[in-house]
Amino acid sequence: MPKIAMLSTGEEVLYGDIVDTNAAWLSRVFYEHGFSMYKRSTVGDQRASLLQELVMLSLNLDVVIVNGGLGPTSDDLSAEVAAEAADEPLVLNQGWLDNLKSFYVKRGKLMPESNIKQAMLPANASVVDNPIGTACGFKMMINDCLFYFTPGVPSEFKKMAIEQIIPDLKTQFPNQQGRVCRRIYTFGLSESGIADTLSHLQLPADYELGYRSYLPFIEVKLFGPSDDLETGARVLAMIEKLLHSNVVSVDEPMLDRIGQLVELHKPIIAISEHSTKGCLASWLQDSEKVSQCCGATWILGSKTASPLDRDSEQLGATLALAGATKGNCSADIAISTGKLENEQFSVAISTPKGEWGQTLKLQRSYNQKSVKTVISTVAGDMLRRYLDNQPMFPDYGFLTRTQDIFLPLDKLS
Amino acid sequence: MPKIAMLSTGEEVLYGDIVDTNAAWLSRVFYEHGFSMYKRSTVGDQRASLLQELVMLSLNLDVVIVNGGLGPTSDDLSAEVAAEAADEPLVLNQGWLDNLKSFYVKRGKLMPESNIKQAMLPANASVVDNPIGTACGFKMMINDCLFYFTPGVPSEFKKMAIEQIIPDLKTQFPNQQGRVCRRIYTFGLSESGIADTLSHLQLPADYELGYRSYLPFIEVKLFGPSDDLETGARVLAMIEKLLHSNVVSVDEPMLDRIGQLVELHKPIIAISEHSTKGCLASWLQDSEKVSQCCGATWILGSKTASPLDRDSEQLGATLALAGATKGNCSADIAISTGKLENEQFSVAISTPKGEWGQTLKLQRSYNQKSVKTVISTVAGDMLRRYLDNQPMFPDYGFLTRTQDIFLPLDKLS
Repeated sequence: MPKIAMLSTGEEVLYGDIVDTNAAWLSRVFYEHGFSMYKRSTVGDQRASLLQELVMLSLNLDVVIVNGGLGPTSDDLSAEVAAEAADEPLVLNQGWLDNLKSFYVKRGKLMPESNIKQAMLPANASVVDNPIGTACGFKMMINDCLFYFTPGVPSEFKKMAIEQIIPDLKTQFPNQQGRVCRRIYTFGLSESGIADTLSHLQLPADYELGYRSYLPFIEVKLFGPSDDLETGARVLAMIEKLLHSNVVSVDEPMLDRIGQLVELHKPIIAISEHSTKGCLASWLQDSEKVSQCCGATWILGSKTASPLDRDSEQLGATLALAGATKGNCSADIAISTGKLENEQFSVAISTPKGEWGQTLKLQRSYNQKSVKTVISTVAGDMLRRYLDNQPMFPDYGFLTRTQDIFLPLDKLS
Repeated sequence: MPKIAMLSTGEEVLYGDIVDTNAAWLSRVFYEHGFSMYKRSTVGDQRASLLQELVMLSLNLDVVIVNGGLGPTSDDLSAEVAAEAADEPLVLNQGWLDNLKSFYVKRGKLMPESNIKQAMLPANASVVDNPIGTACGFKMMINDCLFYFTPGVPSEFKKMAIEQIIPDLKTQFPNQQGRVCRRIYTFGLSESGIADTLSHLQLPADYELGYRSYLPFIEVKLFGPSDDLETGARVLAMIEKLLHSNVVSVDEPMLDRIGQLVELHKPIIAISEHSTKGCLASWLQDSEKVSQCCGATWILGSKTASPLDRDSEQLGATLALAGATKGNCSADIAISTGKLENEQFSVAISTPKGEWGQTLKLQRSYNQKSVKTVISTVAGDMLRRYLDNQPMFPDYGFLTRTQDIFLPLDKLS
């Protein structure tokens, strides 16, 4: 098993101005391919610290992925310092310079002088292609350690890692036991709550659980060998059963699941939002599939006179709003979010089968943005449950349901 | 200036399951006190990698802050491995053991045996008090490098750093110059473009520039001494002048700036969105100040029949939509985003002073979400520019303006 490290560069990472999502992502993906990360380090843009770190890593590890510092600006030093560490000159890579020039030509522009720097590579380095950016990746040996230099831009970095670095590593270090990570996306549970629920689960040898929490979801991750998917699927099913009513999707984000269901049923969806202020429509339409089925959305601003203001009974008013929206937009399904008052909010959905509405209370206070996210997720979950024929009112651990109602079709005047 | 590093420990940090907020926080706070971080590294819970890292750091740095691994469980190895690295025995610290016992007594509990481990320190280490937890911090020398070992729990870690470690460092390294960071938020420039523009700028000694890019903004950061704010302000003004038409805010995010302007003028704002699909309304209303001034928002979904479909001339249609929205919602200002067609989109704003509209072309292709972000930012920038009496049509480096129009009040029928 090779000793692998990742070196992230840049003041903004060192000083925590940006979270090093590339490092977290790479650790996960490498792990899944059987290459586990031995250490990570971060240095700023100072030549001395970068040089020292490259040398130190080259003497103690087998493989190092260096991220960042390939840009055109003067504080991008990776290529230059790599050459120094390997005691090689920097030479112009004509091939990449041509790439750069055509990159700019395509955009009807002249290449800024400063970009020439991005085609200067250590003499013995070989190019690792970056089909979507101007920063040229490259690989080279420094003191018998294999270095891959990669751009900081996440999309470029990830494409390079998946399409080139991992395959390359697999040829150099064959028969690494691959690991797979299956993910169960849950909404409405706490991490400790999930841990308690799963504490009695007997995992087969070589399987482990991990958690990743971020508003509004908690992912339960099941790690296991990639050569026994059957056992993995069985364990996954057990976990899913235990967490059942809070599982919103498996191995794909909830929104992708909603997208599939919408693509399957192709309803015309209309939305009216109050407390979510556009967050719901914007989130749902991040999915191309949902986007293609969306009709009009009406967002009630604080300066908009609306039925919700006149009616003190928010659940009824939110239901009525959904019904009206469905009618006015001649949609198949309408979703509405009511006002947020003393941590309480109502959400309703009007469908060909009837109308469902519920009022929930936040158990802790969130900032403006997080509140919109939580309420939008509840609304999205109602859409998912309706399209998937699931119970409409599950227990949400961190939300207290104070009211709910179902009006079947025949009860609707 | 001492060479300072932070070493974070723990699989969950190494694998990015949790974000290392302690490291980001410490880098910033140290920087403000004149101690800039030279490097950061992260290892898991394996004895070998921790030991190797401690030794490597001890040989190359002056001060190292180690975070995590002081707990009672078997995978908490910091004290043990520190003793090994310094070739010292672990000895029971009676003082801390008494602390531990009274800590549990206060909570009416017996101390679990496993906690005794937390009172075992390297022989020559001295305690760094942790008044709010059971994990004992300590400091010691390893190969002439000063190590501080700290608990992973953020509240305990931060209290220890502020109340004990920083004061202690200041006595050992007096007259360190404090630093401040000023930020200029830009929209519409590339990092290389900014670098070219600022390349001729003569910075006073002890000042440096940094960049932080993330869609849709690029922050230009000016680092300088905290005891000469005047010079800092002068340099900042120079930079602002050079980037002028693309500077959207200084020392605060663009949205906060918009919030201030909206609070000042208190216009009722209505929005109609096509290409932005709710992203604009949702983003603007992340600001409480803007939120309080928002009237209705109308979002045209792909299934909504709209004037934009009938009219092939998108700029005119988008202008008309803004005008109509302003009227229908009896708002003071209406913003509208038109359709996105072959990378082109129109944005318009209707105001008491007249109507402005522009059509722009994306110079590269983004994913669905990023496109909404970019277009929303252009629309938000028009609102900001109108409220701030600035030119409405700046050059956006990564957007090509193909059309623009201004209809002053008197030209509006």
